[in-house]
Amino acid sequence: MDVRHLISIEDVSVSWWDELYRQCCDIIARPGDYSLSCSGRVLATLFFEPSTRTNFSFQSAMMRLGGSVFGFSEPGATSTAKGETLADTVRMMSSYADAIVIRSPYEGAAMAASLYSEVPIINAGDGGHFHPTQTLADLTTISQKRGAVGNLNIGLCGDLLNGRTVHSLVLALSKFPNINYFLISPRELSIPDYMLTHLKNQNQKYIEITSLESTLPQLDILYMTRIQRERFADPKDYDRLKNVYILNRRKLMAAKEECLVMHPLPRLDEIARDVDDDPRAAYFEQARYGMFIRMALLLQMTHLERVAPGPAVSNTALRCTNPKCITATETYLPALARESDRESCAYCDKKMLTI
Amino acid sequence: MDVRHLISIEDVSVSWWDELYRQCCDIIARPGDYSLSCSGRVLATLFFEPSTRTNFSFQSAMMRLGGSVFGFSEPGATSTAKGETLADTVRMMSSYADAIVIRSPYEGAAMAASLYSEVPIINAGDGGHFHPTQTLADLTTISQKRGAVGNLNIGLCGDLLNGRTVHSLVLALSKFPNINYFLISPRELSIPDYMLTHLKNQNQKYIEITSLESTLPQLDILYMTRIQRERFADPKDYDRLKNVYILNRRKLMAAKEECLVMHPLPRLDEIARDVDDDPRAAYFEQARYGMFIRMALLLQMTHLERVAPGPAVSNTALRCTNPKCITATETYLPALARESDRESCAYCDKKMLTI
Amino acid sequence: MDVRHLISIEDVSVSWWDELYRQCCDIIARPGDYSLSCSGRVLATLFFEPSTRTNFSFQSAMMRLGGSVFGFSEPGATSTAKGETLADTVRMMSSYADAIVIRSPYEGAAMAASLYSEVPIINAGDGGHFHPTQTLADLTTISQKRGAVGNLNIGLCGDLLNGRTVHSLVLALSKFPNINYFLISPRELSIPDYMLTHLKNQNQKYIEITSLESTLPQLDILYMTRIQRERFADPKDYDRLKNVYILNRRKLMAAKEECLVMHPLPRLDEIARDVDDDPRAAYFEQARYGMFIRMALLLQMTHLERVAPGPAVSNTALRCTNPKCITATETYLPALARESDRESCAYCDKKMLTI
Repeated sequence: MDVRHLISIEDVSVSWWDELYRQCCDIIARPGDYSLSCSGRVLATLFFEPSTRTNFSFQSAMMRLGGSVFGFSEPGATSTAKGETLADTVRMMSSYADAIVIRSPYEGAAMAASLYSEVPIINAGDGGHFHPTQTLADLTTISQKRGAVGNLNIGLCGDLLNGRTVHSLVLALSKFPNINYFLISPRELSIPDYMLTHLKNQNQKYIEITSLESTLPQLDILYMTRIQRERFADPKDYDRLKNVYILNRRKLMAAKEECLVMHPLPRLDEIARDVDDDPRAAYFEQARYGMFIRMALLLQMTHLERVAPGPAVSNTALRCTNPKCITATETYLPALARESDRESCAYCDKKMLTI
Repeated sequence: MDVRHLISIEDVSVSWWDELYRQCCDIIARPGDYSLSCSGRVLATLFFEPSTRTNFSFQSAMMRLGGSVFGFSEPGATSTAKGETLADTVRMMSSYADAIVIRSPYEGAAMAASLYSEVPIINAGDGGHFHPTQTLADLTTISQKRGAVGNLNIGLCGDLLNGRTVHSLVLALSKFPNINYFLISPRELSIPDYMLTHLKNQNQKYIEITSLESTLPQLDILYMTRIQRERFADPKDYDRLKNVYILNRRKLMAAKEECLVMHPLPRLDEIARDVDDDPRAAYFEQARYGMFIRMALLLQMTHLERVAPGPAVSNTALRCTNPKCITATETYLPALARESDRESCAYCDKKMLTI
Repeated sequence: MDVRHLISIEDVSVSWWDELYRQCCDIIARPGDYSLSCSGRVLATLFFEPSTRTNFSFQSAMMRLGGSVFGFSEPGATSTAKGETLADTVRMMSSYADAIVIRSPYEGAAMAASLYSEVPIINAGDGGHFHPTQTLADLTTISQKRGAVGNLNIGLCGDLLNGRTVHSLVLALSKFPNINYFLISPRELSIPDYMLTHLKNQNQKYIEITSLESTLPQLDILYMTRIQRERFADPKDYDRLKNVYILNRRKLMAAKEECLVMHPLPRLDEIARDVDDDPRAAYFEQARYGMFIRMALLLQMTHLERVAPGPAVSNTALRCTNPKCITATETYLPALARESDRESCAYCDKKMLTI
């Protein structure tokens, strides 16, 4: 099943994943066979917000396929800075490139881009909204280190309220069998209700808990995320809590021998450096697996036929009022409601208002 | 006939164009056959002034041939910023690259670069002077959409006084049979006298007119350009005129069914978005054709033999006093008069002064 | 003999050089045979300090082998700017790339990077410390122009006190037979004692002298470097001396007919432009040879096996107090003493202190 654009991890099925992962394994096994697979093909990277790591991962992935990359890594450099619309920038880029990777501080930017592009759009992060290829990297790491996704106790630790990466990973994991979620966070940063609702609807087993140390022994995977001071109303709460969620070698002694420690990176203090040399530390391999799964994704996406998009027409009388939605800045965009939920914005997924 | 450097559209003949265009058509027809044509070859891009669109077009063109690109996109990044001369920068770049694309705010910069380069120089814009590859993109679009250049009514609309793109296109079109020019502009921004002289000398048929709407029905091609507020002495004149030269769907109803609407891009308001979905809107395809003709150009230029340039020696006692001429900042450059007109500067084409 | 990382020119032997140079000669003779030698391989360039020329030389070298390059050219763009350690940045980059080129204002940065990289590290300049590939470029130029290194009178002229390039070249040349060194500099900028000690230990023949003109007639090679005004306590001394060390066509008349004039570039005023067209001026060819020898180096380095580095552990109780040493900013780095001299820092080679 072809996926034309990768906007959200929810766009893809387990069968699509299985096929992509098989491709990824073959690339890992015989990289030399792929060194000219994308020769003469070009990837455009539109980073309206800097992200060194994600940008380098896509660049190296495309280059390892023998393809090339052009684009910009911060908006200052772009004609957008000179008042060109996102639509026109995407039309131009799609006339030059075989696929487009886009990152933006605005929610729904990748979805908006897909309305005007003749080539596949890959979402590399749209504000606090989605970052599907990070989730693909996580699934690849789990599959490589454990043989398959499923039948595991996973601890998600840190800021579960704002952690885009965590939400996306949970949405993906809930499609696989027998996952137990240990949601480890301070109460101020516990996972949002709509995520809990999702877990309930999918009959997933989960518990919310504040202590990392007491949970660690049961985990097959510990997925760490950063806790940011500015998320706390009262800094004292932060100072009280921050050490609780720092993983170090001493705490790790309580973990299973085959437990995987994962982190989307970059890490600051939430994982002490004395953990790096522990065989359970998987976060650097995770970055490498992220590159390989992106190779599989780009191999597929850069070989799809060019398709001229139809006119973009509104399908709702409602209006999105989310100030972080791409429709707030690119005002010509048609108002679009989700097919599945006619009251939610198709760009940012927030509820819309009647005008 | 080989062209060593592409500085001005006047450097090339119709037969050179025909050959280049044949190559371009073959690339469009069988792109896969060219995906390794420039493998191991490198293009250097020297952008002393930013130009996202032109830069991306050259980059993607080179990459689609399997070649690579390095360089800078604004002068801050360069050793020129550290006081190196243009001559030394070009010598360095030409020792690393197989061809050089240069863009500069100074008139004659590309011509100056050609004096010190072992490899072909391609002018990607030297101040308000020349931008030959934009003209090649325009000719390619016309040829692709109409089968050939010639036998057409073309309307050139907007700022004809300052529009480098328009001047260059007119110089090129006047080499083809039976073109009628409709020069549509406010009086303040009508085409310069030397262009009218050129049209007369070439026995071209043209009229100057201020109304777009009355002219539209007769046109096979409408070439739109931007009108900038700052070009008007009195802003009120701008406000009075600006809407006259905005093309929208309503006005376009008066145009022929096969009329082509072209624009060098980026467009701001001069073409309303409601025109984009009209089959006559050719400005986005124009960008794509620009990439293909640049592929043909780079394929040719990056395969020429390296030639060490001889010493640069002056051929005149006159001095150029044009403050926008490259000789005004790169003072070591030899004073050079045009072969064809010993009183004009070979860099910027302006009249020189006796010292 | 494989060299895993190239940190200092002292890491390599004459036999390694001979092999590398043979490879370089074959690349120069048959470049087309190498246009896909690195297809699918990627080089990461970590420039924590800008250096257009070195950066472009590595980029074009990798690209001419059919390989690709990604990275950053100033620290602002990096996650390091966001507080990531050098160790983590290197781990990330080495998970994406097949080799890493690093330039930093801190001495020992490349050595530090080698402790955390799975792939070869190439030092492209670490503060005033080392720049080994510049020396490889110099040796290549001498070999190409004279057939071999050795049996020559070389004049090293300018700032011999601070000239990293000169120190590195002397260290390399002293491994070749029968070199006579003419160390031409103002007394304020004469070569450091440890270099003289080295020359004595290696039984090298040298003289220190202040006059360029009197020395010129005896030289087979004149290696020019820049003299910077800020190096002088009293600006008047600079004004008095600067012209003494400017090479121009008039002075060059006194030189042998086959004398080579070399310069690491960029040059400012120390070589007058009237020298550029003299057949003895080798400084532009030098840049081109630098690219070819880097091709040979990258061909070798990007084909080495990936090796996970062991834990980085300290081997000394001493502490480096050099404020320019990488250990001054990356404080987690283990204290390391040189194997050959247990009192010197393995990063910056300065003497360490007992704590």
